[in-house]
Amino acid sequence: MTSKGILFVMSGASGVGKGSIHKAVLSQVEDIRLSVSATTRPQRPGEVDGQDYYFISPMDFEERIKNNEFLEYARVYSQMYGTLKSEVVETLHSGYDVLLEIDIQGARQVREKMPQGVFIFIQPPSLEALVERIHGRGLDSQQSIQDRLDACHAEMSMARYYDYVIVNDRLEEAIYKVQAIITAERCRVKYY
Amino acid sequence: MTSKGILFVMSGASGVGKGSIHKAVLSQVEDIRLSVSATTRPQRPGEVDGQDYYFISPMDFEERIKNNEFLEYARVYSQMYGTLKSEVVETLHSGYDVLLEIDIQGARQVREKMPQGVFIFIQPPSLEALVERIHGRGLDSQQSIQDRLDACHAEMSMARYYDYVIVNDRLEEAIYKVQAIITAERCRVKYY
Repeated sequence: MTSKGILFVMSGASGVGKGSIHKAVLSQVEDIRLSVSATTRPQRPGEVDGQDYYFISPMDFEERIKNNEFLEYARVYSQMYGTLKSEVVETLHSGYDVLLEIDIQGARQVREKMPQGVFIFIQPPSLEALVERIHGRGLDSQQSIQDRLDACHAEMSMARYYDYVIVNDRLEEAIYKVQAIITAERCRVKYY
Repeated sequence: MTSKGILFVMSGASGVGKGSIHKAVLSQVEDIRLSVSATTRPQRPGEVDGQDYYFISPMDFEERIKNNEFLEYARVYSQMYGTLKSEVVETLHSGYDVLLEIDIQGARQVREKMPQGVFIFIQPPSLEALVERIHGRGLDSQQSIQDRLDACHAEMSMARYYDYVIVNDRLEEAIYKVQAIITAERCRVKYY
């Protein structure tokens, strides 16, 4: 696939602040777009089809899964949500970059389908400090230390599948770093 | 080699403005250092050995070439100039990044010895516009067009050996882009 734009995928654990970063970057960086998701959940008053979401029927959604039309999809409670590959590819072809903000499972699906994307992992600040803190003090119970270390390692090993890791210590700095990655990747030499 | 810092190598044709960018980036970015070069040229009044240059004898310089101590070196008129590998490696080990600003031949030598470096090519703005301009107008002589296209292609093919290309259209923007690349590379996931 040749495309003019670059696909950026931003992910991380829930609550890590990736939504705030996503919103700020979209409003501050030129020539970058989000992708409108498809969903089976009912349209709410004020929502615009094709702008807030593509509102499609469960049968249509199922059909598109079978046709391999989604870059990623997931069930959230009883409703389906997904990113249409056509949406992303068309935006890239028109010369715009795309910034997706999705959960860790979604990012893994996108990586399989569009490995040429640039994958950014947002990490909570506590994880970095965790190991040092645990080793520095002897206050925590053995089980509590182990649980947190396990969580830490799971998260760290996840980061390995990404191109960049940003520790969301201060929001403004994390936003700047995502912008810097976008600027840098736009300067990157491409080999065709 | 494992090192904590990142080696950034900035290069480009002479007159492209890489000196100005280098100076601005060193003064504005934290935790980045230049590397003091070694030279055989005589020390001038006011210059400090080990700060402006390492002033060494031609015999010493020759010995260090034989011992493979230089990341790159070149003869400029009758004097030798070179970047000592030990200088760069020690700075990287101490946790600082290094930003080298060298000519195209020097960058090629560094690439061979430290391929893990991040190589940034600074391009004059005229080259990008050149092809479009030549095709858009029919004013230039065939030979003049050919000469410039050849130069353009030579330069473009050089850029392929770099990780990033920055068109120095406006100096402030080029400085921002180098800073963005440094910020991004510091967030990059490293595989050991």
